[in-house]
Amino acid sequence: MQNLKGISQKFLKSSFSLENTFISTEKALEWIKDQNRKVDVNIEKIPFDELNAWSFENDGLKISHDSGKFFSIEGIRIKTNWGGVKSWDQPIINQPEIGYLGFLTKEINGILHFLVQAKIEPGNVNFVQLSPTLQATKSNYTRAHKGKSPAYLDYFINAKPEEIILDQLQSEQGARFLRKRNRNIILKVEDGIELLDNFIWLTLAQIKVLMSHDNLVNMDTRTVISGIPFGNYTIDEIELFSFFDSKNQLETVEKKLLNSTLLKDKALHSFDSIISFVTKRKSFYELEVETIPLDQVRNWIIEKDCIRHEENKYFRIIATKVSIENREVMSWTQPMVEPAQEGLCAFVCKEIDGVLHFAVQVKLECGNFDIIEFAPTVQCLTGNYRNSKNGSLPFLDYILNIPKEQIVFDTLQSEEGGRFFKEQNRNMLVFSGEELALDLPENFIWMTANQLQLFIKFNNYVNIQARSLLAALTFKY
Amino acid sequence: MQNLKGISQKFLKSSFSLENTFISTEKALEWIKDQNRKVDVNIEKIPFDELNAWSFENDGLKISHDSGKFFSIEGIRIKTNWGGVKSWDQPIINQPEIGYLGFLTKEINGILHFLVQAKIEPGNVNFVQLSPTLQATKSNYTRAHKGKSPAYLDYFINAKPEEIILDQLQSEQGARFLRKRNRNIILKVEDGIELLDNFIWLTLAQIKVLMSHDNLVNMDTRTVISGIPFGNYTIDEIELFSFFDSKNQLETVEKKLLNSTLLKDKALHSFDSIISFVTKRKSFYELEVETIPLDQVRNWIIEKDCIRHEENKYFRIIATKVSIENREVMSWTQPMVEPAQEGLCAFVCKEIDGVLHFAVQVKLECGNFDIIEFAPTVQCLTGNYRNSKNGSLPFLDYILNIPKEQIVFDTLQSEEGGRFFKEQNRNMLVFSGEELALDLPENFIWMTANQLQLFIKFNNYVNIQARSLLAALTFKY
Repeated sequence: MQNLKGISQKFLKSSFSLENTFISTEKALEWIKDQNRKVDVNIEKIPFDELNAWSFENDGLKISHDSGKFFSIEGIRIKTNWGGVKSWDQPIINQPEIGYLGFLTKEINGILHFLVQAKIEPGNVNFVQLSPTLQATKSNYTRAHKGKSPAYLDYFINAKPEEIILDQLQSEQGARFLRKRNRNIILKVEDGIELLDNFIWLTLAQIKVLMSHDNLVNMDTRTVISGIPFGNYTIDEIELFSFFDSKNQLETVEKKLLNSTLLKDKALHSFDSIISFVTKRKSFYELEVETIPLDQVRNWIIEKDCIRHEENKYFRIIATKVSIENREVMSWTQPMVEPAQEGLCAFVCKEIDGVLHFAVQVKLECGNFDIIEFAPTVQCLTGNYRNSKNGSLPFLDYILNIPKEQIVFDTLQSEEGGRFFKEQNRNMLVFSGEELALDLPENFIWMTANQLQLFIKFNNYVNIQARSLLAALTFKY
Repeated sequence: MQNLKGISQKFLKSSFSLENTFISTEKALEWIKDQNRKVDVNIEKIPFDELNAWSFENDGLKISHDSGKFFSIEGIRIKTNWGGVKSWDQPIINQPEIGYLGFLTKEINGILHFLVQAKIEPGNVNFVQLSPTLQATKSNYTRAHKGKSPAYLDYFINAKPEEIILDQLQSEQGARFLRKRNRNIILKVEDGIELLDNFIWLTLAQIKVLMSHDNLVNMDTRTVISGIPFGNYTIDEIELFSFFDSKNQLETVEKKLLNSTLLKDKALHSFDSIISFVTKRKSFYELEVETIPLDQVRNWIIEKDCIRHEENKYFRIIATKVSIENREVMSWTQPMVEPAQEGLCAFVCKEIDGVLHFAVQVKLECGNFDIIEFAPTVQCLTGNYRNSKNGSLPFLDYILNIPKEQIVFDTLQSEEGGRFFKEQNRNMLVFSGEELALDLPENFIWMTANQLQLFIKFNNYVNIQARSLLAALTFKY
């Protein structure tokens, strides 16, 4: 791994750079539109028995691919002492293999640029979204497709330790995936990298600006960049980049974020107390997950073209036929997960003793690898939050009614389009003033950005929804 | 949680203090002998069908307690791409509940003292060993025994955050337990604590001195104290305790350990590169564990009084009748695990650029919670290491033949006497010179004591064998 000080400066510079970039941000937006125009995606819902190479294995046990690879849809029975419902059944995606989500980076004009892919996924709201250089399951890169191997794969397979500048194991949606994890990796490569047709070089700042558009930066990009440290910079280093040279409404928040980076000792809770907070809850809460045949999943109904909850809540498992026409035509069938409705993920932030803190909750989800993970202040992916009764979920009404000037980020972001059918969730960062007390409900704790960042380094501490929001954090460009 | 700076100084002072202690170390040794004399332990091997309240549930499925609590002995089938053997079956202990391993501490003569219990466990080589104040499974403290609750339990149940000075979730033996973890916790309580008959106040230094005796400090004590930070002390703070005021053969090692604590930036590998090292291996190695009925465990034979490997390797499951006569007589039956032979756990240490480093391996064991954990340089718990062929296990011959003057720690330490029948393993720390090259085999990496210490904070990174050795590390008293 490269010299850390050097790398964190390169990350920092890249996270500020909207000038001297490979391509301007406006042109990048045009380029994405072009990529979308060039492609014709057709996705059609079909009955399960028209799935090709996918079948209900062993008479209703699970839906799996004939090769045994990719993923399967299985039934699980959950027992837990968390929350109001002590036991339930549901279908879940089982994808035990750990894949790559990887960026190649290189310096252009002295600034670190990320090789971003305009990737077509059938389930995307915008069919083309910005994805990491490589997005490959183990089935992909061990060629279960029997097709050609993904572009740039060899850089990752043959990565030398000194080329690796970030390398973390990260979880995915715990309510949808059974203990799924991916290897989030960033390489910095010195020699020339061929720029393929649907790839582009962007700085970290540009990626973050593009995140302020709905459904443009995909989930895999968000999880990888969420692991990039805000850094332990000195005031001098920050000033190199003329940090506060302009004004806008976000300046206050950014100043406090900067404080949270620099004033590590001023966090409300010590790092060891947060570990204790987690230990207590991991020791107390129990999560028992047993795999059961799909036809024994209570309260869910298998129909010829979907598996749905009897009250049409949460999500459905559907079968789809996909065809993508680009320069060549590709066509296949696959099961997908279709959400019952849009969800909301939001962090409430607050200045405490001059430092920005996040109201973090620990949340148990059935597919979690280790019982609980840190989650955003509000995360209601599958509930019908618009109709929620007042007070049913902490902070939900607070966030839905917060004055506009306290909202610092508010966009729709997509979940992974390879598994989820047009799923988008509202992502929000809100900044609280004196109206919000310091006291938090039982499973909530105030943490700084840097504390969250340290937990991200260790696998299975910070969930994908929280990471996705952290990816949106920026200093002033 | 208390002020960290203050606590780490209290830990440090306690780890140096052999004077002004509640009781002298010599008297503590006498006291342990007394405790042993006062007790009469009888443990007898019996046939399985004489077990009381334990039975082979569902015709050979597993051995479990009629209450469904405590633990069970189950069969598992392992598939992995780690090592030479890709699939095997074995019995394993399943104890999914997370228990307490906890110390009460208080200041006596201005020095932090630990409330240590002379605890009788039937499987102990010495029946009485020094254990934490509280050692309680969830069954214990939720009174599955229907007996009285363990001493001092209420302090832990009602612990206030400001009383907690260490609180971590830690793994146990991955070859014997299926994903077992315990809550390792230390409280500092201000008000008077009653000193019960079989309890004693000791400083951390005294506990570490007692670890230099064979089988005196039990596994649970070792795991809890292994989490106590060496600290981020300044040179000035260390000198407060007249660090180098005497000479002995260990001084060189201690100096380098001190360096490794103070000179954090001088580690051979950055923290992020070690994370990358782990990520790569967690992504590559697969561990699939399926529960199977005990009578289907391949290569293991169920006899009327034991379950053994067909070549008598590894360990046996036995049934025992225990009676303990103290002031009152207690008697019960339970299954236990009897090792096939003694094992060896050893760390090879080396000075690199003036800083002490440990040759750490990542090791996959079937009961691991997350595929691999950091383990000592050599860990052969169950293999017959005395007959190993040259080169079969990295560093084994090197350690077995190392000159005496390079050995800094070499004792026999017991595994948990509540589950294991007279199991002891040789624990060694050896200090290498120029004869050992910097290059390490594929799954090994050099780490400093402080780097290991940081990983210990996060659950399931450092295995119990490595932690047990780290618990033995001392500065000069």
